[in-house]
Amino acid sequence: MANLIIRGCDILHVMDGKLNIELCQDIEIRGKLIAAIGNDLPVSENDRFQIIEGQGLLAIPGLMNTHAHVPMVLFRGMAEDVSVQAWFNDYVFPLESNLTPEDVYWGAMLGMAEMIENGVTCVADHYFYMDEVARAVETSGMRANLAWAVFGHQGEAQLDATCQFIERWQGKADGRITTWLGPHAPYTTGRDFLKLSAERAKQLDTGIHIHVSETSEQVALSLQEHGITPVQMLAETGVLEVPAILAHCLYPTNEDVKILAGTGAGVAHAPKTYLKLGMGEIKLQQLRDAGVPVGLATDGAGSSNTLDVLEQLRMMALVQKHAYRDPTTMPVAEALEIAFEGSARVLQMGDQIGVLAPGRLADIALLRQDGVHVFPRFDPAANLVYSSKSADVDTVICNGELLMQGRKLLTIDKGQVKKEISARLERLGQRTPGKRIAVYPA
Amino acid sequence: MANLIIRGCDILHVMDGKLNIELCQDIEIRGKLIAAIGNDLPVSENDRFQIIEGQGLLAIPGLMNTHAHVPMVLFRGMAEDVSVQAWFNDYVFPLESNLTPEDVYWGAMLGMAEMIENGVTCVADHYFYMDEVARAVETSGMRANLAWAVFGHQGEAQLDATCQFIERWQGKADGRITTWLGPHAPYTTGRDFLKLSAERAKQLDTGIHIHVSETSEQVALSLQEHGITPVQMLAETGVLEVPAILAHCLYPTNEDVKILAGTGAGVAHAPKTYLKLGMGEIKLQQLRDAGVPVGLATDGAGSSNTLDVLEQLRMMALVQKHAYRDPTTMPVAEALEIAFEGSARVLQMGDQIGVLAPGRLADIALLRQDGVHVFPRFDPAANLVYSSKSADVDTVICNGELLMQGRKLLTIDKGQVKKEISARLERLGQRTPGKRIAVYPA
Repeated sequence: MANLIIRGCDILHVMDGKLNIELCQDIEIRGKLIAAIGNDLPVSENDRFQIIEGQGLLAIPGLMNTHAHVPMVLFRGMAEDVSVQAWFNDYVFPLESNLTPEDVYWGAMLGMAEMIENGVTCVADHYFYMDEVARAVETSGMRANLAWAVFGHQGEAQLDATCQFIERWQGKADGRITTWLGPHAPYTTGRDFLKLSAERAKQLDTGIHIHVSETSEQVALSLQEHGITPVQMLAETGVLEVPAILAHCLYPTNEDVKILAGTGAGVAHAPKTYLKLGMGEIKLQQLRDAGVPVGLATDGAGSSNTLDVLEQLRMMALVQKHAYRDPTTMPVAEALEIAFEGSARVLQMGDQIGVLAPGRLADIALLRQDGVHVFPRFDPAANLVYSSKSADVDTVICNGELLMQGRKLLTIDKGQVKKEISARLERLGQRTPGKRIAVYPA
Repeated sequence: MANLIIRGCDILHVMDGKLNIELCQDIEIRGKLIAAIGNDLPVSENDRFQIIEGQGLLAIPGLMNTHAHVPMVLFRGMAEDVSVQAWFNDYVFPLESNLTPEDVYWGAMLGMAEMIENGVTCVADHYFYMDEVARAVETSGMRANLAWAVFGHQGEAQLDATCQFIERWQGKADGRITTWLGPHAPYTTGRDFLKLSAERAKQLDTGIHIHVSETSEQVALSLQEHGITPVQMLAETGVLEVPAILAHCLYPTNEDVKILAGTGAGVAHAPKTYLKLGMGEIKLQQLRDAGVPVGLATDGAGSSNTLDVLEQLRMMALVQKHAYRDPTTMPVAEALEIAFEGSARVLQMGDQIGVLAPGRLADIALLRQDGVHVFPRFDPAANLVYSSKSADVDTVICNGELLMQGRKLLTIDKGQVKKEISARLERLGQRTPGKRIAVYPA
């Protein structure tokens, strides 16, 4: 592994809601870690470094995607302008019943190509055939938290199969892969299965990545059927006693927020999906006030059409101002705190990523700042949130390795990925009447 | 003027809410018009054509920006996270009191560089020192509807000065420039001044571009002070008897919508600003149902940070689904109908632009479709609305002239523009206490 030194870049720092941009800094990377940051860092003649010219580029922590279904890029544009029920039952669940492990591999590669181009270095993925996603992570060089989604109707044997996946891949790919359990959601698993999942997670010393309280209807249905909210069911079944990523959690009750505070469970927030599926009010203040970690996510491209974390960052800030009818809500620094510190905490990696500092993992995106759309630069941080394009991402480093330079991907052959997928499209677009991986409650 | 022929592009057609994408077409451009569209168009040996290779590119009508304050890109990032009142009174109005005509010229050039890079070929601009904006339009090659903003307190003499601007520039720049009157808003002009503006517009056979009903507070204030809504004041003073662009019009009453229907006045819709300034509910259905033309706009970069019409298109569709809590609201075809046919109607150019067809003006943007973020291409129209990036715009043609090819601007020297503006930044960033061009009511 070559050491890297980035020369003369600007660095964005966000700590405790305070912003600071240091100009013209060097970043020295040794192995997988940031070794030093400073002005004109000396490098001894004995050291061999690959030099990256960073003049004019803005270094930010590699973007994190705290909840995705990466291979769903295969279905991009196939389920537009339909109700949530139709989206699941008439499109996504039938389409997913066609998937083979190889489809998932190439879908994961396509999604990772897109994420790297967008400056994303780490993803928490929640899907099927996760050995294939893990292989794509190995190849692409990204960092990932991988959870094999499992439904209650698949039974304990399938849960155990996902436990075996955890053991096969935990810490693999030079430490870039973390594996968790992925029970799909309270409404698709049920009490007993959640209890079993929490027990297994404790045995394996791992976490749980799960959808929860995505719509107010889900919360109402849970209260009606079980007398408790979905979040309360997570608490009652022990899920919140292990590290947990809660995807969406748009409708926590006051009681739910109290339960979540202090458990360490974090919420993955993907506003583009919430807008697109008309899922209702999108408010973060209560979770933030209670100290519940909130991070950014793209969800799957089946609903959000892109795996673009910068786009979600912009929408999050805009939507919060809209939700509270207050332009002073979620200032730039808070939005960036969520994108970096918040997302790292949701991934349970707050002490390793999300900050550019010596001793942290070298996960870095370098953005061009010479575009007319980010000029003038009175406020480079506001430009990042409100004006930059993900196409401004020039160079991406993960775990100390270059994944993209000068917008050229170094680990993924895009032409091959598109060719492999093109050969599968006709089959992937078919929906067999009645064939579904699961049923969404009407 | 060289004739152009685009070979083998895909063409997006949106007519009456129906979508169609024709594959592998040639577009023949003679002078400023589209002469023919078809397969393998023959070109006689005597004709001299510049050939543009369009294989794999998607041709769309040049994007239209129906309401902007282009030179405000000079203040990008300077007024973040503040209330609407502070935005006007503490930032924008004081900052604008510093502007010189030369500042406005270079600001306009910067904004036009950004717009051309984003595939925008026509803008309705509403600002000050509009001779300078007109000069920038001459140079940049864009099409523009230009209105010199005027406040009531500036008096009749200033209104007459803007009438002289209209006469100086009407139809200039090879027909690319249209000039209208620009009384700022009912609340900053008042009844008598609006009446005078409408009279002048009739005398000059021109239109009026004005802000109206931007917030519910403005409507309440108007009802309290004048007993009628801002829209009713436009009707009463004769403003709606001439062609009119109504910027924002977020809070029309039922009565207002009835008044607007049939007048031909169109609404410029800029959702990014409405979200960012927490301006409240953003609903278009009532205007659409009544047949009032609605077009896309960016507003000024002082509030929306970018001049990116594709970004506004995406936000409009997402925000409408959110507003009505219904993912079937504003399907892809309707969003594109607003972007193209709707915007052209708002600009009162529905028979000239917004559609790619023989006899129409040759205003065209060609987008790359080979990005991983727009793959697969099950639905290229959904990809355009929900997945594409403005950086996908490869080539831009306006009035039959190439403005950008292979992402290289052909009419604007970006380096020179940034250098000129850099020399002005220190002065532009100053705010003199108490010095403002106008006052926003508290």
